[in-house]
Amino acid sequence: MDEKKLTDIAALGEFGLIDRLTKDIKLSQKSTVAGVGDDAAVMDTGGKKYTLVSTDLLIEGVHFDMSYTPLMHLGYKSAVVNFSDMAAMNGIPTQIVVGIGVSSKYTLEALEAFYAGIKKACDRYHVDFVGGDTTSSVHGLFISITVLGEVGKDKIAYRKGTKQGDILCVTGDLGGAYMGLLLLEREKKVFQANPDMQPEMAGKEYILERQLKPEARTDMIKKLSEKEVVPTAMIDISDGLASEALHIAKASGIGITIYEERIPIDQNTFDTAREFNLIPALAALNGGEDYELLFTVAQADYEKIKDLPGVSLIGYATDISEGNHLITPDNQVVELKAQGWDALKS
Amino acid sequence: MDEKKLTDIAALGEFGLIDRLTKDIKLSQKSTVAGVGDDAAVMDTGGKKYTLVSTDLLIEGVHFDMSYTPLMHLGYKSAVVNFSDMAAMNGIPTQIVVGIGVSSKYTLEALEAFYAGIKKACDRYHVDFVGGDTTSSVHGLFISITVLGEVGKDKIAYRKGTKQGDILCVTGDLGGAYMGLLLLEREKKVFQANPDMQPEMAGKEYILERQLKPEARTDMIKKLSEKEVVPTAMIDISDGLASEALHIAKASGIGITIYEERIPIDQNTFDTAREFNLIPALAALNGGEDYELLFTVAQADYEKIKDLPGVSLIGYATDISEGNHLITPDNQVVELKAQGWDALKS
Repeated sequence: MDEKKLTDIAALGEFGLIDRLTKDIKLSQKSTVAGVGDDAAVMDTGGKKYTLVSTDLLIEGVHFDMSYTPLMHLGYKSAVVNFSDMAAMNGIPTQIVVGIGVSSKYTLEALEAFYAGIKKACDRYHVDFVGGDTTSSVHGLFISITVLGEVGKDKIAYRKGTKQGDILCVTGDLGGAYMGLLLLEREKKVFQANPDMQPEMAGKEYILERQLKPEARTDMIKKLSEKEVVPTAMIDISDGLASEALHIAKASGIGITIYEERIPIDQNTFDTAREFNLIPALAALNGGEDYELLFTVAQADYEKIKDLPGVSLIGYATDISEGNHLITPDNQVVELKAQGWDALKS
Repeated sequence: MDEKKLTDIAALGEFGLIDRLTKDIKLSQKSTVAGVGDDAAVMDTGGKKYTLVSTDLLIEGVHFDMSYTPLMHLGYKSAVVNFSDMAAMNGIPTQIVVGIGVSSKYTLEALEAFYAGIKKACDRYHVDFVGGDTTSSVHGLFISITVLGEVGKDKIAYRKGTKQGDILCVTGDLGGAYMGLLLLEREKKVFQANPDMQPEMAGKEYILERQLKPEARTDMIKKLSEKEVVPTAMIDISDGLASEALHIAKASGIGITIYEERIPIDQNTFDTAREFNLIPALAALNGGEDYELLFTVAQADYEKIKDLPGVSLIGYATDISEGNHLITPDNQVVELKAQGWDALKS
């Protein structure tokens, strides 16, 4: 009767758990501008720009499957997804620190391939590899990546900041990484059933690359800067368009309406979704790991943004009382719900 | 015959592995002052002080044993050992980001205890908890801690910088954390053999606290600053005095001589070592996790440092050609060797 009731963490989900664990945090350092709750924390260390920091864990068997993830790609992706967090603040990455825990099944050559991938990403994004920690693990590979970045104080974009009437924009195209994952999972099963079967990957290079070797859209950060557009809010798409749009809506205290037919989907993604009997728009809305940027701009910036290559205008912000909606091609209005990945619910 | 030869990482050891993985790193960001190879990386983000960053992984079954590590203590220690890295640069910690991967055996209440420990450390050291990542793991608990800090540009202390004739100093006392660990391991075995036995911990509070709840010596950083002493080199003792002294010697290109009888050892540590039939000085030299500061000062600073409470003068720096030595109480000269913990050799 008096037994203390313990709470199963899976029931809370990742975001519920984070809310519980971080609810009573107080900030006391004057250099801290913004803490928990955005794509990166923000510090003012006295220079002209803000310093950004973000961290990510990648765990074998949870975030990647060694049976189809080449280690060099894994290194590249581990770095890039954190660079993407800097882009999500309208900033650029500058330094990276990498922790790895490895079990004895990994050889030096395997780890060198992983580090080669990280270094390749650092070269491409002009990021310095400045430190880390290397240790053993009991089971599998465990990666922790922390990235530092910088952003002009007048350019920073948080998740909050969207106002009613702002235009919702997204870079690139969506759903490809998720279809790449489904394809890899399918071919793994085929291979397990019959190791002599050749995988059917021809013509699927685009979606495979979206899954295995994504890019951070720092190129779009530069384009927005050239156009003198500062997003009113921004986030990167790691959990799916719907989930990220709801993060902006919640943080900004507004509602969001998205036009389904405006969601950018590559032909390769579209065709593969059809092959899997999936609605392509749902792959785009709920499939994660595209690492594109979702952002809002003020209506005053419409002329600057409307013809910017690589940007799609997919919706707009409403008063919070209107809720969050998806408008289907046949003009039905459905509630926008997050059904994206949730690492703690499987 | 043509089979590619693969290298077992355990044969390289932790430091050998880090050397191999980081050997061809190039730095390109002008904000990077110092990268891999010290207790923290150093950045100049344009303010009056340098920004420091350091990261650590803690893995269940490798770095801690859940059977005798209370989660609140583990959270506290996880934070403090990284704060200690900031002290090792003659700086102070300012922000922390925490990643955790947890398996389903952990409850919300367990994680709350862990976070309560981190928050307690943050309160004590005036550090802001600004972000993190929370995810599931397949096996056990994985913790990644990244700490940011700051240090005056004229006060930074690297591992390199010691000159011939400099005085080697250490804060506090050594070997206690290691004896605390041996005691906990012994009592675990006793308990496993006979769960009705009461653990024999009475009078051992000091060494248990040294192991389970260490502190970072940011207090000594302030004292050194008040005395206007800037160490010529500094490191914190996570792997044992001998190992850390050799890091300073190697980085600075000097030799180091330590007087065994000058090594500060608490009575509780001394008595417990005797109880375990160990030479107390060896526990101090090779036992890790004391998180005291080992540093060198110029002879010109001798008067300022010689009576500073909490600092022991234990040796001096020589020309590199003289090698690294320990002088025993009976005046024998023995080579100083690192036999400290090496997480990748077990």
